[in-house]
Amino acid sequence: MKIKRYQKKYDFSYAFGTYPVIDLLKYQSDKVITIFLKSDAENSEGVEEVKRLCKEKGVPLNVSEKSINKVAVKENTYVMGVFKKYDSQLEDNSNHLVLVEPRNMGNLGTIIRTMLGFKFKNLVLVGASADIFDPKVVRSTMGALFRINFKHFETIQQYMSEYGSHTLYPFMLDGGKDIREVEFKEPFSIVQGNESRGLDSSFKELGQSVYIPHSDDIDSLNLAIATSISLWEVSRRS
Amino acid sequence: MKIKRYQKKYDFSYAFGTYPVIDLLKYQSDKVITIFLKSDAENSEGVEEVKRLCKEKGVPLNVSEKSINKVAVKENTYVMGVFKKYDSQLEDNSNHLVLVEPRNMGNLGTIIRTMLGFKFKNLVLVGASADIFDPKVVRSTMGALFRINFKHFETIQQYMSEYGSHTLYPFMLDGGKDIREVEFKEPFSIVQGNESRGLDSSFKELGQSVYIPHSDDIDSLNLAIATSISLWEVSRRS
Repeated sequence: MKIKRYQKKYDFSYAFGTYPVIDLLKYQSDKVITIFLKSDAENSEGVEEVKRLCKEKGVPLNVSEKSINKVAVKENTYVMGVFKKYDSQLEDNSNHLVLVEPRNMGNLGTIIRTMLGFKFKNLVLVGASADIFDPKVVRSTMGALFRINFKHFETIQQYMSEYGSHTLYPFMLDGGKDIREVEFKEPFSIVQGNESRGLDSSFKELGQSVYIPHSDDIDSLNLAIATSISLWEVSRRS
Repeated sequence: MKIKRYQKKYDFSYAFGTYPVIDLLKYQSDKVITIFLKSDAENSEGVEEVKRLCKEKGVPLNVSEKSINKVAVKENTYVMGVFKKYDSQLEDNSNHLVLVEPRNMGNLGTIIRTMLGFKFKNLVLVGASADIFDPKVVRSTMGALFRINFKHFETIQQYMSEYGSHTLYPFMLDGGKDIREVEFKEPFSIVQGNESRGLDSSFKELGQSVYIPHSDDIDSLNLAIATSISLWEVSRRS
């Protein structure tokens, strides 16, 4: 295959750095096309682990400065994985996080890392969303992307018809209930809206809308912050 | 004055956008050097408010495409404030947020916005920190920067000797107490470390160290996330 700068339209993407690549090999080895190493990659513990996993999983390992330099964003990248994009199945009985049209790649990556920290392993993206496979997102998840399930739906209705047993909790500035007073009925879906517009008022009808109380001095919390607080609020009760 | 691209060494900085400039004029008018407007700035409510505040506060208002285009990062910037950098006094009886060597400007801006949302109005930066006046930070606070107090100290000991009545709660991966079990004794200081290294073990001796429980699947939470959860955890109890 030809190594070229990432574009959203490609059916493959890249993971940079030793630890994200280890997670890729451990959790999504059937999606890996090839791994590249620079010749001067130190024989650190991490690099040894990459080599061991490639052997164990039957993944081709190439030494090539050129391929890595062509696409890596950071200069000191010694390990790169090339993998096929994929969609995964969601767990039916687990709680889900649903993001409606998230646009910011940094937010998306940070949220995925937080999800995994608070034992949410199922992510739904609805509508026109940031590209979850963009190497910037992959990097900001620090490998967490490869440990969760995610699925894309065009509309929230399509998601609901497939996962009808989930109770929806849409987070809205004018939500009906203070998050501290919400009893989350499992299995449930925490639903968060777009960075600039939030969720439109039609979401109120879809479940128990929720707000995170904050002072009037700010218009709203940042999306990654609001989402993380909602996940923490669930996690802290367990 | 000569308008030129921002550099950390300058004793002035820029705020871009109508609403951040309104906060600048409302809360730090004595620091404002001048306001620039583009001639085609719409006569929206916001722009009218900028004009009104300039008049009220005696701040010079100039119409200049050129000055804005020279330094603005985003194309659609119609309003820009130029202001002198400043240090503010901290409130002695209020709770403080202390960030030790935060490096990421986006994190710093997001944290400042969250602080204000959870009624923390006093920020301490310790050691080599991101430049709080960088226009990128100013922008990501969305004006919140101008509504809080902040002060820089070289070391945590210097801060402690000046604010001796504050109880310190250093947040550490191996902190002594689960955040859910901590009773925060007012006035207190939430202390968060650097993005990559956290706080070194010496901080354990300075107060009651705290951890936010999360799964082993991630090494740590992102700094802005961990800080926001700590502020929310205080806020949710009030």
